Amino acid sequence: MSDQIRFDLSQNDIPRFYYNINADNPVAPNPVLNPATLEPVTPDFLSVLFPMDLIMQEISTERYIEIPQEVLDIYKLWRPTPLMRAARLEKALGTPAHIYYKYEGTSPSGSHKSNTAVPQAFFNKIAGTKALTTETGAGQWGSAVSMAGKFFDLPVEVYMVKVSYNQKPYRRFLMETYGGEVYASPSDRTEAGRAMLAKDPNCNGSLGLAISEAVEVAAKSNGTKKYSLGSVLHHVCMHQSIIGEEALKQMDLAGEYPDVVIGCVGGGSNFSGIAYPFLRENLKNGQRARLLAVEPTATPSLTKGIFAFDYGDTAKMAPVVKMHTLGHDFMPPAIHAGGLRYHGMAPVLSSLVDAGYIEAAAVDQKSVFAAATAFAQSEGILPAPESAHAICAAIKEALDAKEKGEKRTILFNLSGHGHFDLTAYNAYKQGELGDSTYPDELIADIPNHLPKVPMVA
Amino acid sequence: MSDQIRFDLSQNDIPRFYYNINADNPVAPNPVLNPATLEPVTPDFLSVLFPMDLIMQEISTERYIEIPQEVLDIYKLWRPTPLMRAARLEKALGTPAHIYYKYEGTSPSGSHKSNTAVPQAFFNKIAGTKALTTETGAGQWGSAVSMAGKFFDLPVEVYMVKVSYNQKPYRRFLMETYGGEVYASPSDRTEAGRAMLAKDPNCNGSLGLAISEAVEVAAKSNGTKKYSLGSVLHHVCMHQSIIGEEALKQMDLAGEYPDVVIGCVGGGSNFSGIAYPFLRENLKNGQRARLLAVEPTATPSLTKGIFAFDYGDTAKMAPVVKMHTLGHDFMPPAIHAGGLRYHGMAPVLSSLVDAGYIEAAAVDQKSVFAAATAFAQSEGILPAPESAHAICAAIKEALDAKEKGEKRTILFNLSGHGHFDLTAYNAYKQGELGDSTYPDELIADIPNHLPKVPMVA
Repeated sequence: MSDQIRFDLSQNDIPRFYYNINADNPVAPNPVLNPATLEPVTPDFLSVLFPMDLIMQEISTERYIEIPQEVLDIYKLWRPTPLMRAARLEKALGTPAHIYYKYEGTSPSGSHKSNTAVPQAFFNKIAGTKALTTETGAGQWGSAVSMAGKFFDLPVEVYMVKVSYNQKPYRRFLMETYGGEVYASPSDRTEAGRAMLAKDPNCNGSLGLAISEAVEVAAKSNGTKKYSLGSVLHHVCMHQSIIGEEALKQMDLAGEYPDVVIGCVGGGSNFSGIAYPFLRENLKNGQRARLLAVEPTATPSLTKGIFAFDYGDTAKMAPVVKMHTLGHDFMPPAIHAGGLRYHGMAPVLSSLVDAGYIEAAAVDQKSVFAAATAFAQSEGILPAPESAHAICAAIKEALDAKEKGEKRTILFNLSGHGHFDLTAYNAYKQGELGDSTYPDELIADIPNHLPKVPMVA
Repeated sequence: MSDQIRFDLSQNDIPRFYYNINADNPVAPNPVLNPATLEPVTPDFLSVLFPMDLIMQEISTERYIEIPQEVLDIYKLWRPTPLMRAARLEKALGTPAHIYYKYEGTSPSGSHKSNTAVPQAFFNKIAGTKALTTETGAGQWGSAVSMAGKFFDLPVEVYMVKVSYNQKPYRRFLMETYGGEVYASPSDRTEAGRAMLAKDPNCNGSLGLAISEAVEVAAKSNGTKKYSLGSVLHHVCMHQSIIGEEALKQMDLAGEYPDVVIGCVGGGSNFSGIAYPFLRENLKNGQRARLLAVEPTATPSLTKGIFAFDYGDTAKMAPVVKMHTLGHDFMPPAIHAGGLRYHGMAPVLSSLVDAGYIEAAAVDQKSVFAAATAFAQSEGILPAPESAHAICAAIKEALDAKEKGEKRTILFNLSGHGHFDLTAYNAYKQGELGDSTYPDELIADIPNHLPKVPMVA
């Protein structure tokens, strides 16, 4: 057999610690504000929604946080994940670059989301939480939480944006097979939902409203139910650091070190997961890998948004944080990368981009699907539309290296598979994908949509 | 970290040879007959449909057939596949049995079918074939051939049963993303299709008719197009032997040897793939693993069918072989395990069951989905309905061991994932799955549906 293209670790190599970038972060953190008072939050405010262990992780500056044995035992179902060299894609591109990808789609729920769903379920379980509530758009996150909840015998209520609930039944059936209870949002189970239904009985829902419903159920449960979020928050991003820790070891097996590390960004968790361990190597061990966060031109929070304090959700129930934002009342275009349609961005990632430690780029929907199709046809794996943003940027890097006639080692995170996104692939093939650029006049109007936070801004 | 549950091989451990059970087969083979004359076929007859390398594999008695480097290079995209211990399922069942599964769903097309699609595409490519034709029901096989064809720059025409074409668009979109051309069958591209449309313009199609269309296109192409089949034939089953060869090494890593090896059967290829290397160990090296083929009660060819000469397809264009059959004009009930709805069974497997070297059992659809759901909720992976037949039998073995208070080591083949089968899971959850037992009066009538082959029968 000729050259290896897969670099496997054994189960003994699963990381035993989450890496916390805040131990090494050269950028000072900004306060988190109560959405009602715009004053810094207290742990009490957060403890209505989250168990104390996760709140402590959220604010920790410890460098390494031990992963509980019960969580490691679940990770073994799919970790370590493969790191592959995309040799056939390189050949198809005719590039001298070496392209590697870390593949998180081998998790049973199909994406990196399981990496944080499991510890979130575990820390809730040991805190005595009786049920989890969460929202989901396309369903990747809802699937991961439903699976993780079942593993720890913790019921899960998922508020799924109604248009997705009706149009994407496969994801819903998957959540239900794992035992999740899935409700179309707006539902009649919450005040927020009922108010919306009274106003518009045919409302199709939005992610912002689904968050409000899930948060409301947890907030009114007298502590029995807690809320679970799939990105943005620091503890969520930190759980994903196991991706980058494994990738560091696997690149070592491959005998190369990346010149550039690429991930797609919606809320920022899968990118943070692969990039922060490499950022640590940049900051502490003299490495110089470029770190590139890739977002859709339709939701250009990092590349065109404003770095400012804003609400985490449309209904102003979630904390106010300083982040790159398009405005909390941002209405995203109907692009197919449902996981990247958030108005904001993880605050830590935002501050690192702002300070120049991390690069950002935006790619348009048609280029993304062209890249996804080229990848499927050369490497076999059908990527999730979200992950295909990273592929698109990786291909651009590889073609740039080709043009310049230089060797370049590229690593990207393939955060999930696209088995539930085939209507989007068909729309691309049928030429039905429209322009996905967010209008400049709406960008110019963002400041008018932000909360007035004079004391800290 | 506590006990390992995944037993990984390196890419250097990918088998370099297909194992041919016919080198060690204690049962003499039966002749293959021309469907028109009912006389033994000549290679000329087969060469209209298949390249000579595959015909030679079909009739070979060499024990090991070398896998070409070009095929190994593609296998590296997903092989070796994982072998897992289902420790969480064991715990849920409270059984002293140890349950292992070989997972073929990590192949990009989602099942074991890629293992034979790739060599079939390769041997056609080097023989100068210009395009492949094939049929597909639910789409698992069509996806594998579409992907393999693209890898070798060989166009693929897929005739997809019309009811599936309309009801299961995701599989179709996947084939098209790989570059496959997918036609609803009956189509207006063949005489067989046009004749059926003339008779019934609203005809929903059948697998038998789709085979006839694919065979007709190849047969009338003056040798430019060849036909590709996903199971039943000996060379197809032999390509799958890499599953069992890997599993033997992985059980060794686990430090155990199976008491029973289980696979589901439709045409017989995935079962043959995992079982024949273990049968070799039984025949030549003194092992005593039981080998259990599991089929649906809806298509009980091994457990209730007749071991007799019959046509391979409904339209009597495919060769006549001696096999367990329900009759070539068998109309399968509309069960959800679309891959197991064939009327016959691989001839070699049939003869080994007939001679007592391999056991057979049938399980009903509701038990299969109950087993599939229990598996998903404990192990995470959502199994294909076909593969869930093997899970169902494995659970029965584990519960039998529990009842008898005995240790038992169970290995089954999880041949694919169920990401495209979620409507079936929902039907199960909604209580909509009907009785799937094939009626005894139809079983009694099978002899009246067989060709009269007095000279060899």
